[in-house]
Amino acid sequence: MRSQMVFAVTVLAASLGSSTFPETEPPTREDGSSAARYRDAAEQIVHTTLADNEAYDKLRYLCIGIGHRLSGSPGMEKAIDWAVETLKKDGAENVHREKVMVPHWVRGHEAAWMVTPRSDTLHILGLGGSVGTPEAGIFGEVVVVEDEAALDALGEGARGRIVLFNKVMPRYDPGRGSGYGVAVKYRTHGARLAAAKGAIACLVRSATANSLQTPHTGAMRYGDAKVKIPAAAISTEDADTIAGLRRLGAEVRVHLKMEAKTLPDAESANLIGELRGSTWPDEVVVIGGHLDSWDVGHGAHDDAGGCVIAMEVINVLRKLNMIPKRTIRVVLWVNEENGLRGGIAYAKDHADEMNKHVVAIESDAGVFRPTGFSLECTDKQRETVAAEQMRDIMSLFSSSIGEMTVRVGGSGADISPMKDAGVMLMGQRVEGSKYFDYHHSPADTFDKVDPEDLSKNVAVLAAVAYILADMPQRLGERIAP
Amino acid sequence: MRSQMVFAVTVLAASLGSSTFPETEPPTREDGSSAARYRDAAEQIVHTTLADNEAYDKLRYLCIGIGHRLSGSPGMEKAIDWAVETLKKDGAENVHREKVMVPHWVRGHEAAWMVTPRSDTLHILGLGGSVGTPEAGIFGEVVVVEDEAALDALGEGARGRIVLFNKVMPRYDPGRGSGYGVAVKYRTHGARLAAAKGAIACLVRSATANSLQTPHTGAMRYGDAKVKIPAAAISTEDADTIAGLRRLGAEVRVHLKMEAKTLPDAESANLIGELRGSTWPDEVVVIGGHLDSWDVGHGAHDDAGGCVIAMEVINVLRKLNMIPKRTIRVVLWVNEENGLRGGIAYAKDHADEMNKHVVAIESDAGVFRPTGFSLECTDKQRETVAAEQMRDIMSLFSSSIGEMTVRVGGSGADISPMKDAGVMLMGQRVEGSKYFDYHHSPADTFDKVDPEDLSKNVAVLAAVAYILADMPQRLGERIAP
Repeated sequence: MRSQMVFAVTVLAASLGSSTFPETEPPTREDGSSAARYRDAAEQIVHTTLADNEAYDKLRYLCIGIGHRLSGSPGMEKAIDWAVETLKKDGAENVHREKVMVPHWVRGHEAAWMVTPRSDTLHILGLGGSVGTPEAGIFGEVVVVEDEAALDALGEGARGRIVLFNKVMPRYDPGRGSGYGVAVKYRTHGARLAAAKGAIACLVRSATANSLQTPHTGAMRYGDAKVKIPAAAISTEDADTIAGLRRLGAEVRVHLKMEAKTLPDAESANLIGELRGSTWPDEVVVIGGHLDSWDVGHGAHDDAGGCVIAMEVINVLRKLNMIPKRTIRVVLWVNEENGLRGGIAYAKDHADEMNKHVVAIESDAGVFRPTGFSLECTDKQRETVAAEQMRDIMSLFSSSIGEMTVRVGGSGADISPMKDAGVMLMGQRVEGSKYFDYHHSPADTFDKVDPEDLSKNVAVLAAVAYILADMPQRLGERIAP
Repeated sequence: MRSQMVFAVTVLAASLGSSTFPETEPPTREDGSSAARYRDAAEQIVHTTLADNEAYDKLRYLCIGIGHRLSGSPGMEKAIDWAVETLKKDGAENVHREKVMVPHWVRGHEAAWMVTPRSDTLHILGLGGSVGTPEAGIFGEVVVVEDEAALDALGEGARGRIVLFNKVMPRYDPGRGSGYGVAVKYRTHGARLAAAKGAIACLVRSATANSLQTPHTGAMRYGDAKVKIPAAAISTEDADTIAGLRRLGAEVRVHLKMEAKTLPDAESANLIGELRGSTWPDEVVVIGGHLDSWDVGHGAHDDAGGCVIAMEVINVLRKLNMIPKRTIRVVLWVNEENGLRGGIAYAKDHADEMNKHVVAIESDAGVFRPTGFSLECTDKQRETVAAEQMRDIMSLFSSSIGEMTVRVGGSGADISPMKDAGVMLMGQRVEGSKYFDYHHSPADTFDKVDPEDLSKNVAVLAAVAYILADMPQRLGERIAP
């Protein structure tokens, strides 16, 4: 990694001459305050981005023109083609695909009905990776359990039946955040747990605290299951109805039909585009999101928005002719949703240059009011310094965007495979109260994204990426006194 | 109608002796302030109801144990049976069905897919009364119009195509209320309008301003249409996607399959239960809602809640042993949603006693925080006096429930056939911002009802019904000085 000695004040002063914004005094604090140095640059980026950027049009095309983008689907490949063209048109350099073989799961038609004690349509979405049912479907009596302990307590009670995991996801709390972690366990592992007890299918209450009869899909894993049983998410309302009928003493029988199957791996790609650095082009600041989505809705918040935010950073900086010293590399990963093959492939394909990765920032928390960044690094000393430097940088946005904070811990799924190589990882954070209302559901659509929130996220990421790619010291390293 | 002379002060004072609450002074104002007279009674009713009532359990059973209740369906008949039993158990008298022949529309299976420019599932609900498609479905190119004028402007552009009416429903505004009126026109008349231009099917943007991919059904009418084409509501998200694709220049083709059909009229019933008056039992205060619902979700707000509120009034007054002088009659109408046959039948079957109807109050605006009543009468003088008297009564709730107002104009669909007979009509009003998020959709479920709001509505209606059934003068009439 770059030595602190490189950042002698004389070098810094000289290199600043290439900037399009007024020179500022070289840093006087030992750790080199970036806020002071980059105030004008940040203001220019934020002002320009908030006044006019093309992110919303990009998002519209990706969501409405292309639609959802599950790995292996035509939508995913169309999205890559569109992103290649768009990045090139915006002046990105070195735009190229990097081949990744991805899981290829297809949903097919699916439906479920309650048949006893009355006939009614159920609102389901098969879970990603699930097997299908026989063509005639599966008919079974439903047993409702809250969690694994309740399943265990049933003894043989699940054998030959359909298990419904009805774990209620707590409402969003500004302090504790979402209750997603509580609910997601049974989406991932429910089918395996139920199959081990002899169940014939598994239904899982959707991982959301707000619903208008909207099922939420997501990845499931069979792990070491000896028998693979079909698994589907069911709307919270339908889960409540079934559980309520059971409490009223009714036997509930369900008919579940799913055509889901897993085909051989398909060829897809991560997509790269760069704004090459003026001075240290080999050093990279990675920004990006995942271009794949679930196969419902538009995947607007998850994660068309994150991709568009990163793409637009190149466009904004190009238009401002603000070329930082290091390279800003947009990476649009494939297969975050059901395999993480893109993230794993990127870390592997770029293993030789991991030490040139100054930071990797993922935007994958939805497009809401930006609230700052999370940050993590295996090198705790660098992590501490980086958090301090980032907090300093955050102060640049307090008057234009709002107060933002830096949280140590957590970043993004696609960048996590770079963690062991010591790369500094960051996640773009946003106000989180609504994210899981839409997440992995048909309701994650373009209309749910506020254009102002989108602009603000672009502005913050553009300024942060610019500063981190341009500032004398690498993020997490102290400059020599 | 009853002469004012009947309400001599001596009669009043004597009859008050039967009450379980402390006697108050007879009215001194010319119009007899009910607030002063009934303050203790109202407090007792409100206090008891808010502390403990069985309405939420009733609602649970009606929603979850029985489910939706379209006219002609098994659910509707089960609901009537349950309400008969429940009313009897609660001590209602004269509990009986009154036969009504109702339209019998059945949805059957239905589905729609976008097939061009890409394959995707659409979120639809056939409109009530629609014909079905041929078994193979209808394939057609979609033309998007905002309104009738835009359809007219197409000239021959709709011929052989599927018309999508994409009228956006304005968001709820505390001043102007919901934008439902703007949006509902095309649900009701869209198919007729589109068929007149040669369209082969009609899609209508769902009448809601908040959606999580949730279609909202409702009644449609062919009127004098020469050709009946299938009509379905489509989620706002799917409508936006199709409209957005058209704006991007794409041809959009849709495959629509609906098994919907109208069977011969079925026998059903209005349901009556009474708390017979102690002094003038022939005079009635009608309270009620409609027991039928659309064939999706639970019809919880629309209108299981209204039925349960009215039913619980009997239960609460019985438990308090507060028997008013006039009869309180609970009426649970059938077929409000797609025919109003119940409301029409009630007015006809009871034509002889319309002049004994002191007031008819319908609860059909959802179960939210109570905000007062609307009121209407063809006799404008009585209407004015009634509004004044009701405002007086509303003052009784300001400390326990909150501020409530009386609006002149509007009441309820099921009671509207009594209007021409000069009956005083009232609608129970509630905070309205969320009603249309659920209305006519699979998301109108038990979990959407707040038990406290339910209790408050019961408390208000029980107190108002008691007062109007017990007070010396008829609502809208001034007492003799």
